[in-house]
Amino acid sequence: MKIVSGMRPTGRLHLGHYFGVIKNWLKLEDQHQCYFFIADWHALTNKYKDTKNLQEDIKQMIIDWLACGINPEKSTLFIQSGVKEHAELSLLFSMITPKSWLELNPSYKDLKFNLYYQYLRDFLLGKQIKIIQTPPPKPFKEALKEADGKSKSKIFEEYLREIFHRAFYSQKGIDFKGLKETLLKFGLNKKIVEEAVKNLEEGDVGKDIDTLGFLAYPVLQAADILIYKAEAVPVGEDQLPHIELTREIARRFNSLYEQIFPEPEAMLTEEAKLPGLDGRKMSKSYNNAIYLSDEEQIVNEKVLSMKTDPQRIRKTDKGNPDVCPVFDYHKIFTDDSTRADIDKKCRNAEIGCVDCKKILAKNLNRFLEPIREKRKEIEKDLDKYYQIFIEGTKKAHLEASQNMKKVRKAMNLFNIE
Amino acid sequence: MKIVSGMRPTGRLHLGHYFGVIKNWLKLEDQHQCYFFIADWHALTNKYKDTKNLQEDIKQMIIDWLACGINPEKSTLFIQSGVKEHAELSLLFSMITPKSWLELNPSYKDLKFNLYYQYLRDFLLGKQIKIIQTPPPKPFKEALKEADGKSKSKIFEEYLREIFHRAFYSQKGIDFKGLKETLLKFGLNKKIVEEAVKNLEEGDVGKDIDTLGFLAYPVLQAADILIYKAEAVPVGEDQLPHIELTREIARRFNSLYEQIFPEPEAMLTEEAKLPGLDGRKMSKSYNNAIYLSDEEQIVNEKVLSMKTDPQRIRKTDKGNPDVCPVFDYHKIFTDDSTRADIDKKCRNAEIGCVDCKKILAKNLNRFLEPIREKRKEIEKDLDKYYQIFIEGTKKAHLEASQNMKKVRKAMNLFNIE
Repeated sequence: MKIVSGMRPTGRLHLGHYFGVIKNWLKLEDQHQCYFFIADWHALTNKYKDTKNLQEDIKQMIIDWLACGINPEKSTLFIQSGVKEHAELSLLFSMITPKSWLELNPSYKDLKFNLYYQYLRDFLLGKQIKIIQTPPPKPFKEALKEADGKSKSKIFEEYLREIFHRAFYSQKGIDFKGLKETLLKFGLNKKIVEEAVKNLEEGDVGKDIDTLGFLAYPVLQAADILIYKAEAVPVGEDQLPHIELTREIARRFNSLYEQIFPEPEAMLTEEAKLPGLDGRKMSKSYNNAIYLSDEEQIVNEKVLSMKTDPQRIRKTDKGNPDVCPVFDYHKIFTDDSTRADIDKKCRNAEIGCVDCKKILAKNLNRFLEPIREKRKEIEKDLDKYYQIFIEGTKKAHLEASQNMKKVRKAMNLFNIE
Repeated sequence: MKIVSGMRPTGRLHLGHYFGVIKNWLKLEDQHQCYFFIADWHALTNKYKDTKNLQEDIKQMIIDWLACGINPEKSTLFIQSGVKEHAELSLLFSMITPKSWLELNPSYKDLKFNLYYQYLRDFLLGKQIKIIQTPPPKPFKEALKEADGKSKSKIFEEYLREIFHRAFYSQKGIDFKGLKETLLKFGLNKKIVEEAVKNLEEGDVGKDIDTLGFLAYPVLQAADILIYKAEAVPVGEDQLPHIELTREIARRFNSLYEQIFPEPEAMLTEEAKLPGLDGRKMSKSYNNAIYLSDEEQIVNEKVLSMKTDPQRIRKTDKGNPDVCPVFDYHKIFTDDSTRADIDKKCRNAEIGCVDCKKILAKNLNRFLEPIREKRKEIEKDLDKYYQIFIEGTKKAHLEASQNMKKVRKAMNLFNIE
């Protein structure tokens, strides 16, 4: 099958990327005709205001893909912005895509929710560190009692998210009035709450976030996929609505003009559970990631800082590997018999967390060492490896432009070579 | 100055195009560096469902431009879709353009109004020819009394437009409920009114019209203009909000990244008053146009069918050239002394409309004859003239791609040749 998949250039890859995407790609490229691209245009949808690291982020991604063993002999590796035809097809698709398909897309709403929520959180936490020292309302007070290792500001964040969720998804659009009232019950500074909500409401925030490109990016994504007539796309659960939109656009084009595009299937990627250092999802923005390029010493330090079973406070407490993020790592990096041994000893308080982590760090470094080595090799002769992407981009461009010729013909557009 | 201007390929040009656009271009290209393009991508915003005539429409436009004397030695003539960089820049601009800028653009709202209104009118007039025979409400009845030459359905249209205008621009979005109630007061069939309004409300209409491309086309237009760093754009009054948007996008880009784009000025085009055969604005869709390519005999017939001063019914009635569409034509096509003579004789009922029209037809044909001749010459050797546009497109492409290199550098995007 023909498969297309892209990644936004976010800089150095971490273990979450490896086990969420790269490992799957390595498997796919053995069996299928794959097109893997660095989606630099997509990076602009939320980072257009700060593009100074974009080149560096692309460079790191190139190094990491190749260091992980993504094979240019098997797959076409390219840079999205080097194939102008993606923009051309996206433009043509925009003409046949009802705006409502995009506005009703659940991932559009969710992304908007996240962007708004982040703004609100940063604004409140940034302006008013004393939030959690003012007398909190009763349920919040109770939550604080159960805090159990969680910082107060984390609890505040969780509450805030829930409150904002209710306001955002209310029946009749965002309920700014209810949001303000609820926030004031928190005992927050009235002026600051009013300013934050006003900024959200009057679009001083929304304006910058809510661009045309942000609304339209699923259409660009459809073009990324369909321009190579891909038959399948590896995706996570949260990306399913986008693939459905791609299929709808393909159907609409085919019925309006000519049967050109396949309707690509979603191939659901199994994701290994690999939390970040703090137990949350691993993410650059949470600052809880282990990078493929982290040096041995850094890996050791990061592993030692990892959250473990929160109930195990002293070494003499019995631990529960089922709820321990470190043990999730052992499932991937440690051989079966050692892991069984750790499991048993942890439950009997026969091994301490530090020793358990040292074993993990050693195994993790063993896994990362060849990638680090390869990275160094690549960095020494970077031009040669850039060339792989330049060649791949030319190859992708050739195929894209041939397919576009058919598209233009089907739509009865002018064909100029 | 550098000037960019485009026309949607609507097929053969009529006199309205000539005096509204082409004549101005002929003047501009003597003094400025001009880029004139056929906006085939823009044609898709409202015609994506029926593109079978697009090639023919482009061909006719090529012939007409050249037959009118637009000079490829002076100006760069090209086809928009041949310069992919317009799509690329449009995509990049979409990332920095707040969606609200587009939604609040008055011309977006007005276009939407027109599309909705046309649907409503066609639906009601199409399904229910008896509309104006049912007892009309009082004000409508009074209007009918004043009808004075206007057909009843025209009066109905005017009323409908006013009613819909009120509903469309109501404070809180489109007031469908009020629209329905008012329409029912007209004595219209309840079922049909309900169906029409339901179709509008539930987006069965809106969906097809209200595409992403329709929302986004002012951004594509900004790219069309700015990609050549145009300093001025000739526009009609109704296009002013679009130019303002182009300037805003240029400013935003310049302030986010680097001072690259000028803020192009709007050059307001003086439009000669040249109504269609029926006195309304000349338009292909009203079927009231005289085409540059109309043969002598057709021109004679069309001129004879023209509306004149509605108060002059018999030849012995005195006429008023000030309200006569035919006289508007004399102002352009007839020499001063003949026109003064016609003016006098008309006011004294010394010349009949038929004779007056015959003079006009002769003069009009004298004006059109060289264009028709040139058209025939071009049609005989079409490939040669297509080549002019292909060369122009290559030239435009070269300049566009050089400017895009600077844009990509400013945004810190990857530059692949």
